[in-house]
Amino acid sequence: MAVTSWVPVAEGSHFPVQNLPYGVFSHAEEEPRVGVAIGDHVLDLAPLAASEWADFASVFAAPSLNPFLALGSRAWHAVRQWLTERLTDETYRALVESELIPLDQVRMHLPFEVADYVDFYASEHHARRLGRLFRPDEPPLPANWRHLPIGYHGRAGTVAVSGTPVIRPDGQRRTPGSTSPSFGPTAQLDLEAEIGFVIGTPTVRGQQVGVDDVREHVFGAVLVNDWSARDLQSWEARPLGPFLGKSFLTSISPWVVPLDALDGAMVAPPTQEPPPLSYLRGEHDFGLDLDLEVRLNGHVVARPQYAGMYWTPAQMLAHLTSNGASLRTGDLIASGTVSGPGEDECGSLIEITSGGSTPIVLPDGTTRSFLEDGDEVIVQATAPALDGARLGFGAVTGRVRPASHGSAPAPTGAPEPAVAP
Amino acid sequence: MAVTSWVPVAEGSHFPVQNLPYGVFSHAEEEPRVGVAIGDHVLDLAPLAASEWADFASVFAAPSLNPFLALGSRAWHAVRQWLTERLTDETYRALVESELIPLDQVRMHLPFEVADYVDFYASEHHARRLGRLFRPDEPPLPANWRHLPIGYHGRAGTVAVSGTPVIRPDGQRRTPGSTSPSFGPTAQLDLEAEIGFVIGTPTVRGQQVGVDDVREHVFGAVLVNDWSARDLQSWEARPLGPFLGKSFLTSISPWVVPLDALDGAMVAPPTQEPPPLSYLRGEHDFGLDLDLEVRLNGHVVARPQYAGMYWTPAQMLAHLTSNGASLRTGDLIASGTVSGPGEDECGSLIEITSGGSTPIVLPDGTTRSFLEDGDEVIVQATAPALDGARLGFGAVTGRVRPASHGSAPAPTGAPEPAVAP
Repeated sequence: MAVTSWVPVAEGSHFPVQNLPYGVFSHAEEEPRVGVAIGDHVLDLAPLAASEWADFASVFAAPSLNPFLALGSRAWHAVRQWLTERLTDETYRALVESELIPLDQVRMHLPFEVADYVDFYASEHHARRLGRLFRPDEPPLPANWRHLPIGYHGRAGTVAVSGTPVIRPDGQRRTPGSTSPSFGPTAQLDLEAEIGFVIGTPTVRGQQVGVDDVREHVFGAVLVNDWSARDLQSWEARPLGPFLGKSFLTSISPWVVPLDALDGAMVAPPTQEPPPLSYLRGEHDFGLDLDLEVRLNGHVVARPQYAGMYWTPAQMLAHLTSNGASLRTGDLIASGTVSGPGEDECGSLIEITSGGSTPIVLPDGTTRSFLEDGDEVIVQATAPALDGARLGFGAVTGRVRPASHGSAPAPTGAPEPAVAP
Repeated sequence: MAVTSWVPVAEGSHFPVQNLPYGVFSHAEEEPRVGVAIGDHVLDLAPLAASEWADFASVFAAPSLNPFLALGSRAWHAVRQWLTERLTDETYRALVESELIPLDQVRMHLPFEVADYVDFYASEHHARRLGRLFRPDEPPLPANWRHLPIGYHGRAGTVAVSGTPVIRPDGQRRTPGSTSPSFGPTAQLDLEAEIGFVIGTPTVRGQQVGVDDVREHVFGAVLVNDWSARDLQSWEARPLGPFLGKSFLTSISPWVVPLDALDGAMVAPPTQEPPPLSYLRGEHDFGLDLDLEVRLNGHVVARPQYAGMYWTPAQMLAHLTSNGASLRTGDLIASGTVSGPGEDECGSLIEITSGGSTPIVLPDGTTRSFLEDGDEVIVQATAPALDGARLGFGAVTGRVRPASHGSAPAPTGAPEPAVAP
């Protein structure tokens, strides 16, 4: 039977005691500090630590999780055990209850300072669909795709917390049929539903992290929406990859779910054929059984399953460090768009609408090829806990605002599909 | 006639009083702090400021330039004027002389904390040569190349100061003629001689930096050696661009040359045809007349001219922010390899040796297609000052060490050229 907390947790809450995700919150006029979500409350960790475990008081009074992340896996486990006891054993109620603040009274901040941001491309279904749209003259899956987890560096400085407005980016793009490019607001603003993994314990240059050592370095996971301007991206990306089509904003959820909370979600990944090279083969399964859900203006447009992702987070990390590249506390390693084989499992609009050629019809009768000004996107995910309970990541949300320089393009009922340059 | 300092400056020194580059040094057992190079000395700024201009004492006692960079262009100009007076007016000699430390007694550190690292691809000659080698079936210059400065994000966490050992990276690569990849030390370790521009004044998300506003944001410039593993790069880079072939190490010079010191080096860039879109057109020329020199084991292998770079730093910055991506203090924006049309103007070995097919013969009779263990690379650059003096960037150096996991590949007299996947 599932463990319960003396804190009331509503049926279906993302934050049962099996989760205990960490975030940075502020309350009233006070400074941002570290908290843990439980039900509809945030537990204010700095004062609790001050009275019970003074070593951690300053770590939890910090305005980011980085000092806690840097302490390493023994500290993470110890604190998790301490908090689990305090929240399940009724005898601690008097002590702890005064440090609970209703979630609707706090403001959430970026949970950690992002060091480097790397985005992978780990879904075969996403890679195939984008290959067909962006490179119609080539095989959809690049020759290297089944041999290594393809990834690239994104812009760490524009990773922002859920709820940050999505200002429609301007940019250079070449519209289909035109021979020369023009500059203006993107006409193909898209979302990408992803899971991101947060590095706690750093490494030194030259050190390779083995595929079975990932838990020594990865603290936890967040939801990621890697907003994309497809017209900018398709025009700029050869030969050095995506750049301004991505770098205007990447949103992450305010709560970091500890890897320990995802023990019940560990599953075998899909069969990898051909078998990867030995540095990408490990003893432990590191697929994750996460159910994602993408809503556009309240309407569910996709339910991707993370379990179908071809490359695991452990393989991504082993590959990322295989050249000796060092890790820093706060590195964010995202999966790439989570997409499955089904039409309802696409983690981006460019897949759902086949490059804009088959728009979605929303319940209000309007259609969408890509995002319009005012649209709101909400990405969520849930996972099984070891004891049968179910936990969640909260949400990463964003609403589209008009371009700051120039006007948004007119909505296009049936635009031409995104094409490669 | 050129201004001179009362500090002795040897003929040909990179650090006359016209330069005054900033760096972070440590002396004896003391903490790292900010200094300025003059001749063969470093001027210890924290104690000088403490006695003369207390507002700046803590800024210069910091172990990185970031606090100073964040103060903005008015502070940069004021401090430069103050230092110029102190170092040219003999009456300050008694005050200042005690804060001079011989350069050979200090250790240099990474001069600033790198926020995001972006690398451009601004030399047409480099882009054409690499296009021919990596994508022999396509036109050497991508269709977008003359319309926008192509760039991508690199790994900020592996930017290190000059002198950091270059550990030969392991990685996955597919050797020519083989159908499947293997893992091991790169056989195609290369250098890339570049200039990097350092952001001082940040922006907010949504703000576009105009092509004529670059001096409000860029503090100065450094030498960059963007070490590259060509076999890893050519196998991994489709479709998301370079990743592990670059991310193991990027070296920068310890001295940041203020943009104000480069006023005498500002020249018109090459004619841009077709004319770029208006957001990339400005009133001011921002080409830079810099002479680069690349030495391999002491032997000069290239003398690239920065003045021939197609895209200017001002255009790179305007493009980088055209989608509203924000800048942070410490962002590093590199030019990409500086290469000219001549055979002796190639800023990378892959160009000099045509992908390894025409090795260099060194004075000791050995040949090089790519770098071997023990090789040392030194990149330097000089520039004219406004008054006829000549100044320099110092140097960015690195020596190759064997791979940490596994042995280096046997030297190959005439390897097959690097080919695209």
